[in-house]
Amino acid sequence: MTAAQPAGDNSRKIRYAVVGLGWFAQDAALPAFANTENSELVALVSDDPAKLKELSQQYGIQHTYSYDEYEDCLTSGEVDAVYIALPNHLHCEYTVRAANQSIHVLCEKPMAVTEEECEQMIRACDSNGVKLMIAYRLHLEPANLAAVEVVQSGQIGEPRVFNSVFSQQVESGNIRLREATGGGTIDDIGIYCINAARYLFQDEPIEVFATAASKEEPRFSEVEEMASAIMRFPNERLASFTVSFGAASTSIYQVLGTKGDLRLDPAYSYQGEIKHYLTIEGEQQEKTFSDHDQLAAEFTYFSDCILQDKAPEPSGAEGLIDVRIIRALYRSIEEGRPVAIESSNRDARPTTQQAIERPPSQESPDLIHAASPGGQ
Amino acid sequence: MTAAQPAGDNSRKIRYAVVGLGWFAQDAALPAFANTENSELVALVSDDPAKLKELSQQYGIQHTYSYDEYEDCLTSGEVDAVYIALPNHLHCEYTVRAANQSIHVLCEKPMAVTEEECEQMIRACDSNGVKLMIAYRLHLEPANLAAVEVVQSGQIGEPRVFNSVFSQQVESGNIRLREATGGGTIDDIGIYCINAARYLFQDEPIEVFATAASKEEPRFSEVEEMASAIMRFPNERLASFTVSFGAASTSIYQVLGTKGDLRLDPAYSYQGEIKHYLTIEGEQQEKTFSDHDQLAAEFTYFSDCILQDKAPEPSGAEGLIDVRIIRALYRSIEEGRPVAIESSNRDARPTTQQAIERPPSQESPDLIHAASPGGQ
Repeated sequence: MTAAQPAGDNSRKIRYAVVGLGWFAQDAALPAFANTENSELVALVSDDPAKLKELSQQYGIQHTYSYDEYEDCLTSGEVDAVYIALPNHLHCEYTVRAANQSIHVLCEKPMAVTEEECEQMIRACDSNGVKLMIAYRLHLEPANLAAVEVVQSGQIGEPRVFNSVFSQQVESGNIRLREATGGGTIDDIGIYCINAARYLFQDEPIEVFATAASKEEPRFSEVEEMASAIMRFPNERLASFTVSFGAASTSIYQVLGTKGDLRLDPAYSYQGEIKHYLTIEGEQQEKTFSDHDQLAAEFTYFSDCILQDKAPEPSGAEGLIDVRIIRALYRSIEEGRPVAIESSNRDARPTTQQAIERPPSQESPDLIHAASPGGQ
Repeated sequence: MTAAQPAGDNSRKIRYAVVGLGWFAQDAALPAFANTENSELVALVSDDPAKLKELSQQYGIQHTYSYDEYEDCLTSGEVDAVYIALPNHLHCEYTVRAANQSIHVLCEKPMAVTEEECEQMIRACDSNGVKLMIAYRLHLEPANLAAVEVVQSGQIGEPRVFNSVFSQQVESGNIRLREATGGGTIDDIGIYCINAARYLFQDEPIEVFATAASKEEPRFSEVEEMASAIMRFPNERLASFTVSFGAASTSIYQVLGTKGDLRLDPAYSYQGEIKHYLTIEGEQQEKTFSDHDQLAAEFTYFSDCILQDKAPEPSGAEGLIDVRIIRALYRSIEEGRPVAIESSNRDARPTTQQAIERPPSQESPDLIHAASPGGQ
């Protein structure tokens, strides 16, 4: 714990700077603070003065900083934590700099562009005694938590197959279409499919294969239009997914078990309903999970981890595992062959696989509490 | 045309022998003749005397033959056509023998186990002047025909992605679990996904990759439990599918276009409703296609081709294309790398791609009439 956050203090709020004011930060993150009890938005960091002016007025924020003034933000004494919603290639630098000033870090996923960056981030946060959480909002999302429960309960028998399609039209000029900022379909949306396969199978892939395709359009000149991937899991299970920046919005996954199957459609949305279609022996049940402020849940949980001095899940180790898989998938695309995943991912699992395990504690039913380190 | 079938004779019925009395033949084929106007079931061929006795009584069939008596069946003068529902490895032999006796052949898919067998079947039917059709029942099925129309109409924009999951629990002892008879998930159910990707994209794959997985269970000692595959199509389109003999029944495909998507669920069933879920700009329409005797439509169409001296679609060339893709997928599994598809498949396309093109003729609305050879 750093001096700024006395352990066990439940009366105060964690004060956040939001770093990077892209579309998702504006649409999902900024409005979420109003739906939390223990988190407060106190500063905005962006290089766009017009955005800073407009959004600080809209949310009544006193402190605004350019990227050049990030250090001032970190040392202002006004901020306990940063929420990093910058382009992927900046996650590492802005995390390490925050950690070095004893500021806690909630960093958007993918955690970073390379495994080395992830390791650097973990080290910086560890050595400075600050909390690091990767913003896997679905680890706190009721429909996805319930999906894990359904699969773990044995209702669909033994889970054997995961399949997912995640697509959205990404328009020209979007940062996700730029290679230099760490864009790409697998980094940006494939990560949902990879992470879902891992939390639903509660295991780590052994080998992956992917292939990419791109229409001849200027918007796909730097990153691929789409990719299809197959991941082999232990116990002879297969997970596959297709992600696209060039097809209409779809967000579906399906887990097939020996006795039935569960489909979520939509599966990955951050707004609106999420639906379960559970089929057991030919009988289908539908269940609707109502809209839910996923970012508010995330901020609340991370603030709670800081205030209660608990290790957040999803941790940096969880983020690193996905980045390692993403890099292996891109290596497979480049080399045109399946790529084995280093066993270090599976070694890492014992402390990370509980990320999305139930049940939540009684006192905060929307949150997951991580199992004790070393637990299953 | 053979002497037995004068062209343009609409008054008579084509007389069929059903060869092979497995589950599908009993459940779907035998009852279908009662729902046709131009097709008659006159003979049964099987090596199981109990089945022959029971089924010939049930359907009032006078002529029954063992496999050893197949030649007698073909030369009896009582039979115009055979419907071959034997294990895959016998398709070639029983087709060639029928052709050599001037008997028309409707053969179940996959057409055969190897490309060479397919070519032999095509040659035998061509040189004997008999019709050869491969029993792709979905080429005559209204929901799948409507899916082709939706995709071709441009309603979902340009089609970019095909994804499918087809699974059923196949019990120990089932012939589809035996390698020697040409069983396997890709041969037996993957063929539906391959064929659907081809008729929905109206094109031929360039390169394919697949991987297989099998739980340690006696039933999966000869053929794989499941396989996941990715097929690259021209114009940078990707199709992927997962097929399993070890998970609960699922039969879904989805085509994603630039403006919307179409999902069929179930997609491949031969009994019961088939449903369309068409989403365009976020608005979903559901359409139910009622149960429909798919085998009766198939027999009616094939008999019509014989009576009217028309070339049936799906032809032997269509069957060969899928077998070539299936073999390439298994080669990919063995070699652990993507496998290019010979360009001969794409060369073959001009005469086969019309297989599932609309509209049906006015006088027989349940059938497809093939476009003129060489037409698009």
